[in-house]
Amino acid sequence: MTTLANPQTKIDHLRSQLPATQATAYFNAGTNGPLSIVAHDTLVAAAHKELHTGRIVPGIYESHAVRNDRIRALLAETFHALPAEFALTRSTTEGLNIALHGLDWERGDEVVTTNLEHPGLITPLALLAHRYGLEIRVADIGRGDGDVIGAIHDSITPRTRVIALSHLIWSSGAILPLDSIVEVAHDHGALVIVDAAQSAGQIPVNLHALEVDVYAIAGQKWLCGPEGTGAVFIRQNLTSAIRPTFIRYAQADISGYLLPASGARRYEMGESYSPSMLGLEATLIWLKDDVGWDWLHGRINELGRLCWDTLAAIPSLTVTTPRDRMAGLVCFSVGGFTPQAITSELFKRGITIRYVAYPPGPTVARVAVGWWNTEEEISGLGANLAEIIAAGPEAVSSK
Amino acid sequence: MTTLANPQTKIDHLRSQLPATQATAYFNAGTNGPLSIVAHDTLVAAAHKELHTGRIVPGIYESHAVRNDRIRALLAETFHALPAEFALTRSTTEGLNIALHGLDWERGDEVVTTNLEHPGLITPLALLAHRYGLEIRVADIGRGDGDVIGAIHDSITPRTRVIALSHLIWSSGAILPLDSIVEVAHDHGALVIVDAAQSAGQIPVNLHALEVDVYAIAGQKWLCGPEGTGAVFIRQNLTSAIRPTFIRYAQADISGYLLPASGARRYEMGESYSPSMLGLEATLIWLKDDVGWDWLHGRINELGRLCWDTLAAIPSLTVTTPRDRMAGLVCFSVGGFTPQAITSELFKRGITIRYVAYPPGPTVARVAVGWWNTEEEISGLGANLAEIIAAGPEAVSSK
Repeated sequence: MTTLANPQTKIDHLRSQLPATQATAYFNAGTNGPLSIVAHDTLVAAAHKELHTGRIVPGIYESHAVRNDRIRALLAETFHALPAEFALTRSTTEGLNIALHGLDWERGDEVVTTNLEHPGLITPLALLAHRYGLEIRVADIGRGDGDVIGAIHDSITPRTRVIALSHLIWSSGAILPLDSIVEVAHDHGALVIVDAAQSAGQIPVNLHALEVDVYAIAGQKWLCGPEGTGAVFIRQNLTSAIRPTFIRYAQADISGYLLPASGARRYEMGESYSPSMLGLEATLIWLKDDVGWDWLHGRINELGRLCWDTLAAIPSLTVTTPRDRMAGLVCFSVGGFTPQAITSELFKRGITIRYVAYPPGPTVARVAVGWWNTEEEISGLGANLAEIIAAGPEAVSSK
Repeated sequence: MTTLANPQTKIDHLRSQLPATQATAYFNAGTNGPLSIVAHDTLVAAAHKELHTGRIVPGIYESHAVRNDRIRALLAETFHALPAEFALTRSTTEGLNIALHGLDWERGDEVVTTNLEHPGLITPLALLAHRYGLEIRVADIGRGDGDVIGAIHDSITPRTRVIALSHLIWSSGAILPLDSIVEVAHDHGALVIVDAAQSAGQIPVNLHALEVDVYAIAGQKWLCGPEGTGAVFIRQNLTSAIRPTFIRYAQADISGYLLPASGARRYEMGESYSPSMLGLEATLIWLKDDVGWDWLHGRINELGRLCWDTLAAIPSLTVTTPRDRMAGLVCFSVGGFTPQAITSELFKRGITIRYVAYPPGPTVARVAVGWWNTEEEISGLGANLAEIIAAGPEAVSSK
């Protein structure tokens, strides 16, 4: 643990370990987080070793297995679950696919989701509806700001087998009350499958306390790992209900006798780029030991609200994120401007945010406030936005 | 194209571009090929750029899409098919899973396979049998040395929907007569799904001429790409018969209306480690332009047979690879020695081969002769084997 009494010294030091935060005001961990020097150096050293000594030395597969065990243990510690409950994936979307295809569906089975989901969840749900005749019920939860539990509860029927939704909404920044959702779901015998792309690493998550069933995590967003990494938590008592679909690790007799690997490893397709897995491990250790989970979650929470207040004070700008249920995502729109134009103009001014445009979901500009951001960057964002808005839409579109 | 009139100069130059070939006599591309300097340098440069400029600059997703288009075009040129017929995967096994789960199976449907397949095919077949009630018929083709077509033909029934097998057998080195297998299969209305882990890059492959339906390729073996890369060819007229299962790219309305991406891209889970994809591209260009496909295939063929003859001349050693149907894989056993002991002893002597032990398939030692190997390495392998055998099994096991 790097113990730096002066918070300014600490943030300066940590920012120096994330070079991309020097290149731009980095407000987009919601897409990809900034990579750390330690992850990069670890990855490149491993790549160099592969080049020179080859990838076929005795013991190499055993060392990959041990490395993956270490990563699962780090995930278990971070998210409060068992190492054997994590399958390593390449993305949130893969984790959601694993869980959704692992259930044996019957025509007419129902899934409840919300009106605010990401295509990473919507697309596999649409495929299940198309291919297996499922019915998908969409609970309208507004921007995640109203009676979420009520809307979900009203969508449940005796055929509901799964409630599938995000923990933290990508297009509004709202944190959904997952503990209550799990309670309602389990009362009705339904599983809860969570798109955790935005929540994992952004807010504290205790999987065992939440009693959630499936939690699909991205490696490259708030965990700042290499892209193509991720994990899915599948609760230990669900390894018979959620079967492997795409499969690699198993003892198999071709006639149909199959003994999958123990634990969630059975769901892994395996074969990722090996140095990138070491990079992910290095990042998780760095976040835990040098940054500190409590510290970074607290800072995201604090800076997110500072950003909300800063933007809300700008004339003509509407912040759409519910302030009482937020962390680091701040979504907004500006009358007369498209979010695309705002995003593009800010990028020219050295500030990176993104827009979200996936109708019928809300089209908004989105600031993802990371723990590496500074108060100065947030006031700079506010000042630039005020200036852009004051100059009018023509000034932006004519560039 | 590097044109070097002197073949010795050419091979010396090319070997210098594959540093792992200096560290050991590299006879194991059947597991992982040696990485090239150009692939490594490309990958590391891309990793460095990600670290410093971030992974969220405008246009980055478009550039990934264009990069993937370039890779599909290279694959199409190499394997004689259309770019739109390739989905980028992370492994052969993933490609096989995509095809096998893409079919809508009915209980009692049958798949014909062989007694010599790799777990990457056996395991998904066992899962289909277990989960969907398929019947898997195993054609006994010996070591791939007898009447392969007859054995496969005898296993076909009116319920046969798929013939799933390797083009080049991992545990015997035999090349199966794929064109005739396709003919028999199509005559009976069955698809041919091929495990091409060993064939792609080792032997010339013309997918359109073969009229094969699915061809699952590994990036990290004979194509010498980064691990976690691969591709699957799915014939253009099969995009309705083989449906997406795990899905990422589609336009979707959650009620079950789904418009997958055009072409085989619809089968991609996406999200690989971006620099590793650039590394794969660099490798494919290098193999095409600097090494030359015709030259390297010819050399593997020639050196493979030299290796066969060298090993067959050693007393007590039995080469099990059929010499009239081989390319670069040479499998053998030695009375009194386990293949494990032989492999381990050779490694100590600076020679890397591997053993294959996946009962009930054959347990053998396996030499994968690459185009980067030399006549001297092959005679060195022979001399060392003769010495090990002459010293007797006790000399090996006591070390």
